[in-house]
Amino acid sequence: MRPAIWSNVSTVSTVSPVPSTDPPLPDAHPAGEPSGDRSSSDQDSGDRRGDAVFELHRGGKIELALTVPVQTREDLSLAYTPGVARVCTAIAAHPALADVYTWRANTVAVVTDGTAVLGLGDLGPAAALPVMEGKALLFKRFAGIDAVPLVLDCTDVDELVDTVVRLAPGFGGINLEDISAPRCFEVERRLQQRLRIPVFHDDQHGTAVVVLAALRNAAAVTGRTLGDLRVVVSGAGAAGVAVTLILLAAGIGDIAVADSRGIVSRDRLDLTEVKSGLAQDTNLAGRTGSLADALRGADGLLGLSAGRVPEQAVATMADDAIIFALANPDPEVDPVVAHRYARVVATGRSDYPNQINNVLAFPGIFRGALDAGATRITEGMKLAAAEALAEIVGADLSETCVVPSVLDERVAPQVAAAVAAAAKVEGVVRPS
Amino acid sequence: MRPAIWSNVSTVSTVSPVPSTDPPLPDAHPAGEPSGDRSSSDQDSGDRRGDAVFELHRGGKIELALTVPVQTREDLSLAYTPGVARVCTAIAAHPALADVYTWRANTVAVVTDGTAVLGLGDLGPAAALPVMEGKALLFKRFAGIDAVPLVLDCTDVDELVDTVVRLAPGFGGINLEDISAPRCFEVERRLQQRLRIPVFHDDQHGTAVVVLAALRNAAAVTGRTLGDLRVVVSGAGAAGVAVTLILLAAGIGDIAVADSRGIVSRDRLDLTEVKSGLAQDTNLAGRTGSLADALRGADGLLGLSAGRVPEQAVATMADDAIIFALANPDPEVDPVVAHRYARVVATGRSDYPNQINNVLAFPGIFRGALDAGATRITEGMKLAAAEALAEIVGADLSETCVVPSVLDERVAPQVAAAVAAAAKVEGVVRPS
Repeated sequence: MRPAIWSNVSTVSTVSPVPSTDPPLPDAHPAGEPSGDRSSSDQDSGDRRGDAVFELHRGGKIELALTVPVQTREDLSLAYTPGVARVCTAIAAHPALADVYTWRANTVAVVTDGTAVLGLGDLGPAAALPVMEGKALLFKRFAGIDAVPLVLDCTDVDELVDTVVRLAPGFGGINLEDISAPRCFEVERRLQQRLRIPVFHDDQHGTAVVVLAALRNAAAVTGRTLGDLRVVVSGAGAAGVAVTLILLAAGIGDIAVADSRGIVSRDRLDLTEVKSGLAQDTNLAGRTGSLADALRGADGLLGLSAGRVPEQAVATMADDAIIFALANPDPEVDPVVAHRYARVVATGRSDYPNQINNVLAFPGIFRGALDAGATRITEGMKLAAAEALAEIVGADLSETCVVPSVLDERVAPQVAAAVAAAAKVEGVVRPS
Repeated sequence: MRPAIWSNVSTVSTVSPVPSTDPPLPDAHPAGEPSGDRSSSDQDSGDRRGDAVFELHRGGKIELALTVPVQTREDLSLAYTPGVARVCTAIAAHPALADVYTWRANTVAVVTDGTAVLGLGDLGPAAALPVMEGKALLFKRFAGIDAVPLVLDCTDVDELVDTVVRLAPGFGGINLEDISAPRCFEVERRLQQRLRIPVFHDDQHGTAVVVLAALRNAAAVTGRTLGDLRVVVSGAGAAGVAVTLILLAAGIGDIAVADSRGIVSRDRLDLTEVKSGLAQDTNLAGRTGSLADALRGADGLLGLSAGRVPEQAVATMADDAIIFALANPDPEVDPVVAHRYARVVATGRSDYPNQINNVLAFPGIFRGALDAGATRITEGMKLAAAEALAEIVGADLSETCVVPSVLDERVAPQVAAAVAAAAKVEGVVRPS
């Protein structure tokens, strides 16, 4: 599956390829412990040969490639010494030239600490690398963006923020990924304060944009608007919080959030700072109690945690209900069960209609932000992204088509155009 | 010059390419200052159109590329969710699998703080990016290694070390670059202590390996061995120190180092810790005074600083002298002048014979270290690299051919094989 040549420009024979036989299984990276100390469980005892997922992942999913030729001394003298010295000197004199004469303006760091890998929890940085490579794959495939996976061996907020700030001079944007709540909110906020490039926690805002687009279309297909809906969000992690905030910004009728202890309401004394904020702005109906109490008569359920929602609770929702059960691979409500009570059902899965997946948002959002020279990604840019995404469905709108296909080639460019236009309106574009 | 498609696997049309027209010139990255504060010198006033170096650098020299297909829902389910979750879980259980099922084992971080960019001094991280991209270009072209340029906005040793340690879980090796002396010695030493992957400061050891190989061949072509030579090193920066140390390890007859204040000798009271160490181990002849004093009767001059060496001093060297004047683009001794007094002359320039360039060393050294699963790059591995490099010249050995061409395709694989073999002999290979 890997291409035989190492460069997509070079055609001369190159040397010493990555061994096609299995490499030896090395120890983990950190020093300071003799190799004998490591448990034998570090060794791979599983037989993964013939497994399509593992075979595809062998050697990784991305590579660096050359965009200029390196065949002659002349090539070397332009791309490397002595020619490169003039480019360095020019950038030192005019810092903005780094966006013209390096890959930076089209490059995004995909950064995680591995504390919330997919729905799997704190697996650590190395185990998060396949997801970050996957993200880089999607950035390139759908938006032509060069994304670099960076998996960090630190979880302290100060350390995460300092590390990303130090890395920033080489990147045009920062995509945070799979960092657990509530640290993720603080990490993003502080990076946005300290940097003048887009910083975007995809688990929050990518999800929020796609859910908003889908919910708008789901409301429309059932003859309503967002303002007509009372919805319940299950889960107050990164995605639950961000979805709630964007729905409030978009004019949702009423929204309540439930975490593992029940409805987030003003009488609760166990709330984090972020949840306390939600308690102020949500749950106009003033309900207390469990998720089931919130669901009674609700128009929508947005599942953004791995917690199952019992059928008895789903059965109490209003007519023409909307259920987005987005836990992956096991939705909070089985889609077959959900369809007994709801008119529109969406999941994160590719084997059911209405697949809600962040890939519908982040490639286009970053493409638009980079194209516009945006210094940040604002609420207005996210709302514009959701609107563009919702409108792509167009005449295909139906109960089984509230979002475009993840493979719809129109998505990234149309989202990008809307985001770039919004950046200009919002006044967050660098002066040219 | 950029390929029209974004992926070297995908052939379907992709979206929203990088604009081919000039992007606007944005401000620099850091936040915290209103855009009006920035000097107008940040704006590019130069007309660089039609300049081959700048045209080649437009948009950068490298890109991310896909090594797996992303065309169908099935592709997505293997490379991304839900399939990728199984790879993450496997790595969490068996950490060494990150070297099998991600790009890590073939990936090197090219890290700088921009404090010693080429011979240009402290230009800062953004201005160093073209050199780091160039390095990534050469890593890929000559050794098939995926190298990621990382330009760091910090110069404190603790901060540099901590940042690289945090980044390490995603990389198979660390190539330090263009970090000024003496901080570079401490940064490398501490990273080698804290990590179990190869950490290599190329300005030191890449240069040292190539100089050793060239000097061995230069001695041979004049009927001598290294042990017969008394050489003088001009410059006690990163390269000067490392060249001195490797020549001592290789059995040089005598060696003296001169910095801007003269010969590094035991009677000097102004020496850094590193130079004090050199004073103990070098200058057996016990000379004091200036570079010119050291050169009188010397067999070799190794220029590793930008300081010019006057012709009168060169004229006092021994018969059959060897002069390596490696400052770029202006050698310490003009090659025409050098040839009046020396039998073998080498420079860093591609327009004279005997071009001494690190690209002869670092691609093969990292290829060998990665292939062997080496936890570090030892003195023995560097000596083996120099020996392999020297031997490639073979029957072509002459006064104008003491090193192979930088485009010689045999170099990287033969250096890699020697380094991998030495890693096994030295016992620094991870257990398989």
